[in-house]
Formats: sequence, structure tokens, C-alpha cells
Amino acid sequence: MKNKINLLIILLLCVNFSSTAEKVNKSDYRVPSADDLLYLELDIGLVIIELNPLFSPKHVAQIKKLARRNFYNGLTFYRVIDGFVAQGGTNADEDYGAKNFKMKNKSLQLPIESRITNTVNKTFTLVQSPDMFAAQTGFIEGFAAAKNNEDSLTWLTHCPGVVGMSRNNGPNTATTDFYIVIGQAPRYSDRNLTLFGRVIYGMDKVQKINRGNANNNGMFENNNEATTIHNVSIASDLPKSKQVNIMVERTNTIAFKKKLSERRVRSNPFFYEKPPQVLDVCQVPVKTIIF
Amino acid sequence: MKNKINLLIILLLCVNFSSTAEKVNKSDYRVPSADDLLYLELDIGLVIIELNPLFSPKHVAQIKKLARRNFYNGLTFYRVIDGFVAQGGTNADEDYGAKNFKMKNKSLQLPIESRITNTVNKTFTLVQSPDMFAAQTGFIEGFAAAKNNEDSLTWLTHCPGVVGMSRNNGPNTATTDFYIVIGQAPRYSDRNLTLFGRVIYGMDKVQKINRGNANNNGMFENNNEATTIHNVSIASDLPKSKQVNIMVERTNTIAFKKKLSERRVRSNPFFYEKPPQVLDVCQVPVKTIIF
Repeated sequence: MKNKINLLIILLLCVNFSSTAEKVNKSDYRVPSADDLLYLELDIGLVIIELNPLFSPKHVAQIKKLARRNFYNGLTFYRVIDGFVAQGGTNADEDYGAKNFKMKNKSLQLPIESRITNTVNKTFTLVQSPDMFAAQTGFIEGFAAAKNNEDSLTWLTHCPGVVGMSRNNGPNTATTDFYIVIGQAPRYSDRNLTLFGRVIYGMDKVQKINRGNANNNGMFENNNEATTIHNVSIASDLPKSKQVNIMVERTNTIAFKKKLSERRVRSNPFFYEKPPQVLDVCQVPVKTIIF
Repeated sequence: MKNKINLLIILLLCVNFSSTAEKVNKSDYRVPSADDLLYLELDIGLVIIELNPLFSPKHVAQIKKLARRNFYNGLTFYRVIDGFVAQGGTNADEDYGAKNFKMKNKSLQLPIESRITNTVNKTFTLVQSPDMFAAQTGFIEGFAAAKNNEDSLTWLTHCPGVVGMSRNNGPNTATTDFYIVIGQAPRYSDRNLTLFGRVIYGMDKVQKINRGNANNNGMFENNNEATTIHNVSIASDLPKSKQVNIMVERTNTIAFKKKLSERRVRSNPFFYEKPPQVLDVCQVPVKTIIF
């Protein structure tokens, strides 16, 4: 298997990368578990979301359950505000899911999972301290996260490509509908909503999702214009032939830390005016490779 | 004319806005000069850029000159990195423009215009002090800007939708190619490149521009995949029937300042966990209305 991956990486380097492409060191990448990969099939192509059961186990479990019951198939991204979020799901009152799946509404309601304490065994690679919205920002296994100095709570941050669960006014009212951040990080939402995943492939497709009317909360004048979610499935449920071979950059490596310092210092002569040595955690790309 | 606009706004409110839409107060909007509006016609629709001759007069003059000579028509967005920039133009050495237009390369080279001192007569509506990248951020006539405390220099910030001129390593090497920021604000580029405009309409179309290979600096394997720029023109050169009636939110009004404080304080009960009272200048929408 190791050799197979090596060979594939070499092939990839030869076929897809031009001479200007960066070298790929396999040990700087990880292959995410197929159990935690959600495939969204849209007209415009495939989107892959890595779920995060460490931060939001109940939300991840529910999304998987709903996906396996084909709950999302045929629904739309019904509220889409350019520069903000694409929200998908029922676009109906909270009973919709219950009617369709004979589950009581209350059984679908999820307790908010907006921060956790159990990251002690996970590397928090520091990016910025202080950041404008938190005492510290960093990465935990590819996910942008933040924490304060005074306690051990850690939360995921609202960066572009992050996937969260929509809710009503009460913090524990999320049920089925979800959103993908498609614009400048709305960090003020951090800790107010449960983030349960991150788009690791196909963010360009997400950006092609049709936008609604920004002056009407992103809703469509005509819902036929809304982009349809054809299918949502868990990678591990699919035959191997339909699974995409995907690797994600590790964020706890020497290479990644080096990338962080290069982005902070900008020694390249192009930057004739050296920027302040700070980093926006949402402006650090974490690479994905399809092999 | 005043009455006509009033009537159109009322019609707009009646026809397009649902009951949840915000009320529009005409005095909170301005109609930008048609001389400073650049129309980019793409397959996927029209994009309108407001040019900023206050900050970058020479770049604006050159863009207009090139547009009037049909320089950009038929060229492509040849370097497109999702979450970063869409870069359009010649994708060739700097002589390309000279060959086509019998102008010497050096006559096309522009001095960098990355900051200005003459904003004294313009309101700088403060957004955040300090911001992570500057002592102060704010808005000057709809454009996100920043300055330091110690001097009077002001510069435009790299927010999503901002349009800048690409260059080589030397600061004064920009000639023809330009980029639109399509992802999380790359603020580290502030003051390193000349920003000369801002997309005020059609950012959803910009987001549909085809992406290149992120692992190869956004270049396309096959340039046929690159999105074509069919036509670039100045609004005032077009017949009235082809001009879009557009209004942009003023950023020096009481209403806009109220919006800023609401975004800072988040008194809505939805925010059960009050965010820190800070604002990212790139995360404040400045509205556009088509009438």
C-alpha cells in the first residue's frame, strides 16, 4: 500500500504537476478516514467535506444518519448570500424532517457543540496570538481553531469552506439544515453555531452554487433557481471504484510550521513593503491532493 | 430625475423585496459616476467594477485607455486560485501589449500607487482600531481602507471583490494584467500592489470564473478551460440603454455607522454567546442596488 501511494504520487508529479509545482512529501499528508468523508453531488460537480467528530460528534452522527436515509437528496441550497453562506436543506419548518422520516422533531434537535475541552491529545499548531477574535488561533488536524488563554476550551473558527449546522434562535435548535461559508470569514459567529466539517475538495464547485437575493436574506425569487443537492453519501458506504483517493496536508508537521513562518515573514523580494508579521488563520491554505 | 429615482425605488421595494427586506433610504446611497464604472462581460454574465481614481489615478487612466482600445476583449482569466485571486489579461511576456498596440513596453509600465495622502477631504469612517494588519481600518466612499496612526498615508485593503494590478518583482512593473480577490482577504498584500477598483455588481459571476490548478499557481492545464473576457468597456461610452442603473451604499452616513455598531455589538438574541466587539473591515458588506 505504501509503495502504491508512492507510485501514485510520483505519477501525479509527472502527469499533473508542471515544473513550477511544489514537491509533495507523502509524510506531510494524511489520508482521511472514509467514514468521515461526506460526498455532496451537485450538477456542477462533486464536493467532499471532511467531518469532524472530535469537535461535534452528535452533529456528525446526525448528518451521517440523515445522509444514509437519503434525506438531503433532491433538496436545494435555498438561501445563498454571496460572500457569506450557502445554506442547504429543507427550507421548511422544523417538522419537515419529522414528516418525511417519521422521527419526532424533538428527536432531531441537537445540543450545540461549539467548543470542546478534549483536545489535549491533539496538536494545536499555533498560528496567531493574539488574533483579533481570540487569544490564540491555530490548526488542529487541518481545521482552523481558536482558544482563549484562561481556559482549555477550543473551538472551530468560521473560515471559508467550513460547514456548520443552521439553527433557530435557541442554541439547541439545529436539526437538519446546514451551511457552507463561501466568503470572508464571519468570525463573529464562532462559538454561536456548531461547525462539523470542512470542504476539502470542490470548493470551486461550492462557489458556483447559485446565489439568492442578498437584499432578501439570500432567498430566491423563484426556488427553481436554487442549486439542487442530488446526492449526499458517506464515502465508506460507496464501492471503492466510486471513492476518490484524497490526501490532506498535515498541520502539525515541520513543513507546515515552516509554511506558516514563510507566510508570516514574506521574505520573497516581491514584498518590497514587508507586511506586519501576523497571520489570519482563515487565510492559510491547507492543501488537498487527489491521487 | 429625483422623482424618477424615488418611484423606481418604490417599485423595487414593491416588486423585488419581500416583507423581510430592509427599507432603502435613497439618501443613504449614491449613484457612481459612469466614467468610473468598468463593465466586464463574461459568458456567465456582467461584472461591474467601480474604479478609484482618488487612490490610483494612473492605473485607472491606463485601464480605461486599454479598455477603449479593446485590449482585453478575447483575453482570459488565465490564473485563478480558488480562495485567492482570479487574474486576467495577456498571460504573456510584457511585450504582448506593445506588439498589439504599438506601444513600447516601458510606456505601459505604471508607478505603484499603493497609498495616498490626499484623503483629507474624504470621510474615513472608522471600523476598527487597531486591526490586526493596521492601526486603523475604515471606509472611504465604499472602499475598505487602512492607515497607521503616525502618518497621514491611507491605503486600500485587499478585501474580497477588490481589483488590483498584477506586477513582476519590481514595484513599478505593472502594465496590463489585473486580478480580482475571490477569497479570504490576503491583507499581507496591502501596500504591495496597486488596487484600483472594487466589484460592486456581479461578484457571484466572478465566483463562477473557472479555477486553475491550485498546485500549479492557478494556471490551467489547458487554457481552453479559462474563462474568457468578452468585452471590457467604460459605462459612459455605452448608449444609455446599455447602462445599468446602479446605486452603492454610502459609507459616511449615520445609517452606515449604525450598521457598523450593530455588527460590532450583535444585540440580536441569536448570538447567545456575544462575540468580541471587533470588526473585520473585509467582512462588512457595502450594498449595491440595481434600479
